[in-house]
Amino acid sequence: MVATGLLSASALQWIDQLGVLVFALSGASLAARKRFDIVGVGVLAGATGLGGGMVRDVLLGDTPPLALRSVAFMILPAAATLIVMAAHGWVLRVERIVLMFDAAGLGLFAVTGATRTLERGNGWWAAILLGTMSAVGGGVIRDVLARDVPVIFRADSELYAIPAALTAAAATLCWHLRALDAIVAGAIICVAFTLRLLAIRHAWTAPTPRDRMV
Amino acid sequence: MVATGLLSASALQWIDQLGVLVFALSGASLAARKRFDIVGVGVLAGATGLGGGMVRDVLLGDTPPLALRSVAFMILPAAATLIVMAAHGWVLRVERIVLMFDAAGLGLFAVTGATRTLERGNGWWAAILLGTMSAVGGGVIRDVLARDVPVIFRADSELYAIPAALTAAAATLCWHLRALDAIVAGAIICVAFTLRLLAIRHAWTAPTPRDRMV
Amino acid sequence: MVATGLLSASALQWIDQLGVLVFALSGASLAARKRFDIVGVGVLAGATGLGGGMVRDVLLGDTPPLALRSVAFMILPAAATLIVMAAHGWVLRVERIVLMFDAAGLGLFAVTGATRTLERGNGWWAAILLGTMSAVGGGVIRDVLARDVPVIFRADSELYAIPAALTAAAATLCWHLRALDAIVAGAIICVAFTLRLLAIRHAWTAPTPRDRMV
Repeated sequence: MVATGLLSASALQWIDQLGVLVFALSGASLAARKRFDIVGVGVLAGATGLGGGMVRDVLLGDTPPLALRSVAFMILPAAATLIVMAAHGWVLRVERIVLMFDAAGLGLFAVTGATRTLERGNGWWAAILLGTMSAVGGGVIRDVLARDVPVIFRADSELYAIPAALTAAAATLCWHLRALDAIVAGAIICVAFTLRLLAIRHAWTAPTPRDRMV
Repeated sequence: MVATGLLSASALQWIDQLGVLVFALSGASLAARKRFDIVGVGVLAGATGLGGGMVRDVLLGDTPPLALRSVAFMILPAAATLIVMAAHGWVLRVERIVLMFDAAGLGLFAVTGATRTLERGNGWWAAILLGTMSAVGGGVIRDVLARDVPVIFRADSELYAIPAALTAAAATLCWHLRALDAIVAGAIICVAFTLRLLAIRHAWTAPTPRDRMV
Repeated sequence: MVATGLLSASALQWIDQLGVLVFALSGASLAARKRFDIVGVGVLAGATGLGGGMVRDVLLGDTPPLALRSVAFMILPAAATLIVMAAHGWVLRVERIVLMFDAAGLGLFAVTGATRTLERGNGWWAAILLGTMSAVGGGVIRDVLARDVPVIFRADSELYAIPAALTAAAATLCWHLRALDAIVAGAIICVAFTLRLLAIRHAWTAPTPRDRMV
């Protein structure tokens, strides 16, 4: 979703594009499972792939949002829409690959969202919040539009927002220490990636409120 | 929702106002069918009539949105609220007239949304996206607030977003050809109007994802 | 949610902070009743406490929103999250106290929302709309995220948005009469507070659309 000076390394730019595509695929795929038509598939693809970054940019006052400034950001959700329209079954069969790229996009979006926030002179709290929102916002919009409870709220969902928040916090700390170059950013994203995949494999979930009255 | 140099013709301005009123009536009417109170009727009237244009203006960085700059834009949802509070049955009986003005508003909002986006120096992709969003965004917000699946996503709904997107694309093309005067704009809106009414009459729906596994 | 010149009185600032905390508690508490995990509790706490003011500031073009400019605004939803995670039962037991602070926050947010809008040169209609939205917007976002019908729409809910709108209108009128000092603002907030508590006690509800056909 973002391209900052930090991310000049073309490897990171590729992950960025793959992240948008994979987020868009998750939106398009949910629309197909809900039996929506091509409009629903396209809107959910665009909202999931680009929504988190759009909300971030609007809150930063950085308008029009990055996602509207290049046709590349429109092409990726359009491609996800066509893929799901033509071969939804195929997307379900490669679900594991999608989950892997999603885990890579999760960390990347958290790092770039936090960086964009800091570069505009905002505080560490805003960077952590908007970094996390860049990573998880698209999925929340997807679920609200599809009339689902947001997946990240569910007690039985594997850790997702928490790795994103930890990643945004790590990137914010390194930025303040002037240590956030491409290598450190890549390392943080790798940790987020590993944490997310471990959470899926071992079904790690987040704590829930304690029921008992005190 | 918008009034640009292009739309100096007072006929188009009247359709603009009628479009907001009719969109507001569709929101107010849904609230009445859901048995909401006057607050729900008023919020759905305002969100449906003005929401699409507000989101467009926020994304364009054109704040406060046009809808907040003139009391006229508040009066129309307020009128829709009073009409539905006093005589909801009457609104249901004139549903066909409402659908006709809605079809006129659909095309107009798509044209003016695309034009506003282009006038601010944005690309054709942004114009098509925000033109379409101006036309269909209010309805999506209405459905989300009323806890319905957005109508435009439903496989059994007649074409709505697709005529809006085609209209926005046609207006964008004509704008780039320097051919978008009031007459051409009116012609595009008439085509959108006809397409939408034909879709309703013949129950034309949009394609859905292919189920079979590949 | 706001701190304007008007509200230099530290008593009002305290109510402001308490308002955010109490709104955040209502979001966190709904998340606990829905059995969401800590992510859901935290997101609903933040969205309910800060969402109304964030939407207002984005519409005013006043970005980044006030809620992102000070870490204090993050601490309050974080505190609400921890309270509900540790002792949700306790929050339910003090529900009456929460309702009282909520009623105080309601009026305060409506007054400060209207004032911020007027100070930026907007019309009375925008002030009433954004004042009301500051007060009720967080709750609507909370309900949409939790997949509930917004409480303020429900025919059986006690008056909430209407006292907020009356408060915003009174503040707007006094502002135009150059009479909105801390004492007048406090008086308006007290009237809103009383009206809301009376509505709860006597189960005052808003009118609903008339069913009969005409």
